[in-house]
Amino acid sequence: MEFDTIVAISTPIGTGGIGIVRISGKSAFDIAEKLIRSRKYKSIKDIPVRYAALVDVYDGDEFVDEAILIKFKSPHSYTGEDIVEIQSHGGMVVLKRILEAAIKNGARHAMPGEFTKRAFLNGRIDLSQAEAVIDIINSKTRLLQQNAAKQLKGMLSQRIEEISQLLLNLVASIEASIDFSEHEVDEVSHDEILSTIDGALAKIEKLIKSYETGKAIKSGIYTVIVGRPNVGKSSLLNRLLKEEKAIVTDIPGTTRDVIEEVLDIEGLPIILADTAGVRKTEDIVEKIGVKKTLESIERADLVLFMIESSGILQEDLEIFETIKDKRFIVLVNKIDKEVKVSQDDIKRIFGKEGIFISVEHDKNLELVEKAIANEVLDRGIESLDSVLITNIRHKELLLKAKEFLLSAKENMYSVPLDILSIDIKNALESLYQITGKNVTEDMVDRIFSMFCIGK
Amino acid sequence: MEFDTIVAISTPIGTGGIGIVRISGKSAFDIAEKLIRSRKYKSIKDIPVRYAALVDVYDGDEFVDEAILIKFKSPHSYTGEDIVEIQSHGGMVVLKRILEAAIKNGARHAMPGEFTKRAFLNGRIDLSQAEAVIDIINSKTRLLQQNAAKQLKGMLSQRIEEISQLLLNLVASIEASIDFSEHEVDEVSHDEILSTIDGALAKIEKLIKSYETGKAIKSGIYTVIVGRPNVGKSSLLNRLLKEEKAIVTDIPGTTRDVIEEVLDIEGLPIILADTAGVRKTEDIVEKIGVKKTLESIERADLVLFMIESSGILQEDLEIFETIKDKRFIVLVNKIDKEVKVSQDDIKRIFGKEGIFISVEHDKNLELVEKAIANEVLDRGIESLDSVLITNIRHKELLLKAKEFLLSAKENMYSVPLDILSIDIKNALESLYQITGKNVTEDMVDRIFSMFCIGK
Repeated sequence: MEFDTIVAISTPIGTGGIGIVRISGKSAFDIAEKLIRSRKYKSIKDIPVRYAALVDVYDGDEFVDEAILIKFKSPHSYTGEDIVEIQSHGGMVVLKRILEAAIKNGARHAMPGEFTKRAFLNGRIDLSQAEAVIDIINSKTRLLQQNAAKQLKGMLSQRIEEISQLLLNLVASIEASIDFSEHEVDEVSHDEILSTIDGALAKIEKLIKSYETGKAIKSGIYTVIVGRPNVGKSSLLNRLLKEEKAIVTDIPGTTRDVIEEVLDIEGLPIILADTAGVRKTEDIVEKIGVKKTLESIERADLVLFMIESSGILQEDLEIFETIKDKRFIVLVNKIDKEVKVSQDDIKRIFGKEGIFISVEHDKNLELVEKAIANEVLDRGIESLDSVLITNIRHKELLLKAKEFLLSAKENMYSVPLDILSIDIKNALESLYQITGKNVTEDMVDRIFSMFCIGK
Repeated sequence: MEFDTIVAISTPIGTGGIGIVRISGKSAFDIAEKLIRSRKYKSIKDIPVRYAALVDVYDGDEFVDEAILIKFKSPHSYTGEDIVEIQSHGGMVVLKRILEAAIKNGARHAMPGEFTKRAFLNGRIDLSQAEAVIDIINSKTRLLQQNAAKQLKGMLSQRIEEISQLLLNLVASIEASIDFSEHEVDEVSHDEILSTIDGALAKIEKLIKSYETGKAIKSGIYTVIVGRPNVGKSSLLNRLLKEEKAIVTDIPGTTRDVIEEVLDIEGLPIILADTAGVRKTEDIVEKIGVKKTLESIERADLVLFMIESSGILQEDLEIFETIKDKRFIVLVNKIDKEVKVSQDDIKRIFGKEGIFISVEHDKNLELVEKAIANEVLDRGIESLDSVLITNIRHKELLLKAKEFLLSAKENMYSVPLDILSIDIKNALESLYQITGKNVTEDMVDRIFSMFCIGK
């Protein structure tokens, strides 16, 4: 496709050593020609493609800055169009002057995400890859960035393609059965249809499930420490926070409407919350505290359930009742003191092994961190070697595809083949929307408006 | 010179389309080798110099991002050393991961300004050019950026070199006179010495004078509107501000300790201040107001002196007394109403022509702006086509050189030639310090510590 020529400052706003102004479109070279002078190159045409050439940038007759110019020739560029990148010093005045000089000479200031949108429209990347670009730029933690990088590499696109191929083959078989039923073509069997749909469904389910981990990685894992008073909850919180204070990040959105400090455990953003003890009480203030605790538990992605190694009390059992339906880790604290509780007791009563720790003596706290990471990463059925769904748009399209396939399965024996194939085609359509094979212009506009200018 | 290998994020901190990590030093290629993989290039050695190659960046075995890699071969690079630039997506996590991967593989995190310092130490640019780099990056207005760009291009260095050559030739002549006085060498005449010193002094003076404009361009021109009550001061202020509000910038440092809004007139930062009317009064509060006005006038780089076209009053004359030693512009307001004052009256009474305006009807306000720009730019004897001194370090060294030359002139007839040449050599030494020909290590460290990291 051919568009007008756009320009933007592509590096972050601010002052720095280097800044980049990027021009893309069919007049990119001609416009750049008017901005630069060079002793070595009479014309921009003389600069080899992809060669970092030192040039002087001018705004009319005014020298603006020395810069490195790189031209990329269509289609081998980010957007698929002719691109000129001008790397100048990273001051805002310099960059704005170059930007304005390009606009004066016929370029249009780019809209947010317009470079990446062109990359998509020109077929350089698919929609899920374009969305990965936003995620890479905006990601606040390593795992999220890493997952976005995989998505950029096309790992999600590949999965979608695999499932689509299954369904496409199925549709082809069904339609061949219909069209050529009087010929020698074998009619596709219901068993065959069923097994293909189930195969596709299993793959779709896996991806949908990975959204749970994906979402956790994106927005943080709300982790609540629960236990009776004095069991060591606040000490654990402080100990874990202190250890990692240097790499805490900010994530908004707790019930208290405050920004919580967040632990980075193996690249995962863990939002740690301490709670008041849970117990039956007539005291009004304490009742409010308990209510808050119960609300926290309700919201929790993960509960750190703390008891003492000196014994399991009736109170512990009552607290356990409130968290037992949650994902939880049992922490047995104060092993530096009396240890009367055995691993067997823990397993029998709480259904899983506990981690024996001493918060005060900093014993086995690394096991706590490991357990937290494992619990979170276990959620996605697939390992982190595969790509996770982090985008709600993708999840919803996968859910849609799933519904169509379930409907096909349900009606399989009651409707004729051509009706069946409609459901499967609808499922395919939903999948295609993930990679953008058949999205509407409106949808494309909406997706790219979330980008920053210059990308 | 050979140093260890340094690395830094060279683009501004923040999120943007593109970010750059730069590695410089003798191991730059080897370190980059460990960070990248490419289907096309088996080794970084296979990538042509200055060629923008698409590569995958890895942190160990973890894929981090797709990036453009450019290698520059010593000595043809910014620092004069081997350089690798990795252009990835502009997210902070991505950039930090690449930075850390480079550090893991043997690079050291660069100090502020260390890339430019190496460029200086390796003789790629002189000290005044290096200082221009800071100014280009930090400049808030077009004129300052433009002047810094000229300095980067070596325009200041050239001037210094011209003056140095004059003095160097003079020293050579003097020393030849001394060493070979018994031979056939003509002794240098006092006339010759005097004319050379005067020539050098004139050039030095010009540069020193340009600092007044340079400083104004750098820190803003404090412009005070003065006049009797109701003459239209505040309206003028509002009118000028409103017109330009879109491009105002922030410059700190008024007496009130607030950040003032600043007009950008032809690239000049004009700090506009309104004042209370000046008149004799017994009212204590009003006295304070008048005192403040007088203080403002004291500090002013430029005064806009406003009267009314209906007549010049005794009050106007009294106010004029307080500003007459300042650089001022006479504005004759309200020409939409009664005009009884003539240009001749203005000239006779105030010593220069006035500008006849109507603030209310927006008449001739463009002439006011033009006049402000002219007054400011007139200060530097040299036109804006030449380079201005904006750096206090340069000004002080020029003043030192001037003193040595004045001392030489003063003693010319009373001291022997060899003593005279010491003064001239000292002047030379001061000049050389501007371009860094003979600066101390300590001074270099101090200058470059003002840079940002990554430059």
